[in-house]
Amino acid sequence: MSPDEILTPAAVVDLDRMESNLDRMARYAADHGLALRPHIKTHKSPDLAAEQVRRGAIGVTVAQFREASLMQAATDNILLAHPPVGDPKLRRLVALPATANMTVALDSPEALAGVVATARAHDLSFGVLVELDVGMQRVGISEVSTAVELCRRAHDADGVDWRGVMFYPGHIRQHVSRQDEAIAAVDATLQRFLEALRQEGLEPGTVSAGSTPAAWSSHRLRGVTEIRPGTYIFNDRTTAAIGACGWEDCAYTVLATVVSTAVAGQAVVDAGSKALFREELRGSDEAGYGALLDHPDVVVRGMSEEHGILDLRGTSWRPRIGDRVHVVPNHVCVSVNLHERVWGLRGGRIERSWPVAARGWDNLPAT
Amino acid sequence: MSPDEILTPAAVVDLDRMESNLDRMARYAADHGLALRPHIKTHKSPDLAAEQVRRGAIGVTVAQFREASLMQAATDNILLAHPPVGDPKLRRLVALPATANMTVALDSPEALAGVVATARAHDLSFGVLVELDVGMQRVGISEVSTAVELCRRAHDADGVDWRGVMFYPGHIRQHVSRQDEAIAAVDATLQRFLEALRQEGLEPGTVSAGSTPAAWSSHRLRGVTEIRPGTYIFNDRTTAAIGACGWEDCAYTVLATVVSTAVAGQAVVDAGSKALFREELRGSDEAGYGALLDHPDVVVRGMSEEHGILDLRGTSWRPRIGDRVHVVPNHVCVSVNLHERVWGLRGGRIERSWPVAARGWDNLPAT
Repeated sequence: MSPDEILTPAAVVDLDRMESNLDRMARYAADHGLALRPHIKTHKSPDLAAEQVRRGAIGVTVAQFREASLMQAATDNILLAHPPVGDPKLRRLVALPATANMTVALDSPEALAGVVATARAHDLSFGVLVELDVGMQRVGISEVSTAVELCRRAHDADGVDWRGVMFYPGHIRQHVSRQDEAIAAVDATLQRFLEALRQEGLEPGTVSAGSTPAAWSSHRLRGVTEIRPGTYIFNDRTTAAIGACGWEDCAYTVLATVVSTAVAGQAVVDAGSKALFREELRGSDEAGYGALLDHPDVVVRGMSEEHGILDLRGTSWRPRIGDRVHVVPNHVCVSVNLHERVWGLRGGRIERSWPVAARGWDNLPAT
Repeated sequence: MSPDEILTPAAVVDLDRMESNLDRMARYAADHGLALRPHIKTHKSPDLAAEQVRRGAIGVTVAQFREASLMQAATDNILLAHPPVGDPKLRRLVALPATANMTVALDSPEALAGVVATARAHDLSFGVLVELDVGMQRVGISEVSTAVELCRRAHDADGVDWRGVMFYPGHIRQHVSRQDEAIAAVDATLQRFLEALRQEGLEPGTVSAGSTPAAWSSHRLRGVTEIRPGTYIFNDRTTAAIGACGWEDCAYTVLATVVSTAVAGQAVVDAGSKALFREELRGSDEAGYGALLDHPDVVVRGMSEEHGILDLRGTSWRPRIGDRVHVVPNHVCVSVNLHERVWGLRGGRIERSWPVAARGWDNLPAT
């Protein structure tokens, strides 16, 4: 099928670029002896997770239970990188297939107690990683002694298998040429945690890092055993802006149609915040919510839910009504999540398509 | 079922508030002799559209084809308020049931030509509204003579029925106490269009206005025959901040669970940008991406995809891990669109639930 036949806005992926992105990260991990556990929140597709596993990923990272359930089609080795707090989620944890090798991340005695009680009540065992804060200040324990104490509890508890620690260095979003200092700071913080654990006889089997922007520097964080990048499969305008990929590595775009040129200095496409998402470019001073793949100087200056305003003031390019454009969004993970199917292009044709199977939220404890 | 049984994040609606919101807008329209054509992009549910029709709505407004297809369960009177440009969309227009009384909005001769050719090729007839720009500068014609010329073309063309004009005064987002000047400016602009049309013997049967923030002032725009508010069914933090509803009229919230309190001065809930959406508060200086229904001074200061950071620095309220909170998002339409089911609460129980049926995008010309 030709992409000209589909209605816009549509989520499309250049398959050659995607495969090259997958290969590159797999090679990086292998070259540095790091386990690769991709975060599948970016694509939410068991098919693409399977492609990651085929390239050597040891398992996947997920953020929520729909993702955990569906990814079992690709692997039984799953890290839930979000504390499963409260009865409905703990019931859902139990409802996962018995074959699942589940590890959960958490940062509090309360969350640990819930997982332990659930495991014991159902005669199950779950892996546990204790989440550390290495500067992101989102979740994770920043106090070394508090972290050691929680690792000790997890290590000693029945029903759970303490597997180590994880952290998310999402704050390292500087341009790669300026990342050195941030990486050094994370490394110094991490060593304090690891030394304290070792002094207590707690040797973490897993030290898990994450995030695409920092992924290529992961080998410089001493003691790290695995990485959890997500965005790298598709990349996006942010990743390119900070230099963690090239513009030509952006595999995902939203295909859009020019629907109005009535207002001077702009053209309006049918992809707005319900197709691109609304997120400022971070780690960069550039403006707009996305840019055209073939005219990166043309940015999406403003949006409504179904309208994207292309800024034509700095370009001689003048689209006509009906023209189609490929928009690279600032943040790919949240754009993919707005579409239920992605169309894979190669050689100007739609070669395959796949559902964004794990988009949305399961609200019922068992499904 | 108790809401305590569902997994968070979850989209929930206070049914009493929703019904009161529906009644209030229906009463306003009836009191002022305005036809009510709600924009269903807010809820994307045929069930809720049917409730709007039962309260006197003459039909609905939609922005895209999945919405158009599904809303026929509630009404055959549908306005597609987005130019249907390009063959795939025109084929989809033809594929709608023959019983549909479809009107499309457009602002260019190119878009009109496509609709006319499609109608004639298939021996169909579509209503047409010409979209005017009254200051929003998104889509719509701002030049009076250009607008008159397009109305003339639509009026004279076979295959389409020129029904009038529409505009979207979305730029009137000032606090209601400061809206007077903006309303007067829109009114003055509108009269220029209407007078020019009448001088040409083109009497618009429909003059359609829109948007919840300005809806309550629609009777002050001379010549307006119908209004297209969407947000009013649920309301949101923006609508309350500008005074177009009270905080107690916010019917929609995202139910979330506190999952981490590890970092001082904040609590982390499991609702982030994939549950709340990410949109700055507009028309107000207040910060954050949402606020707690029961503690409006506690705002969502930052977000990741599955993490919302509650700012506790200005409050003595201290949640515990496992506590549940109701978050009012800044913009309800884009938050609802992230969930596939909404849970309706009354008296502390889940009374009903409904699918967000029209979320996502149809990419195939016929389904």
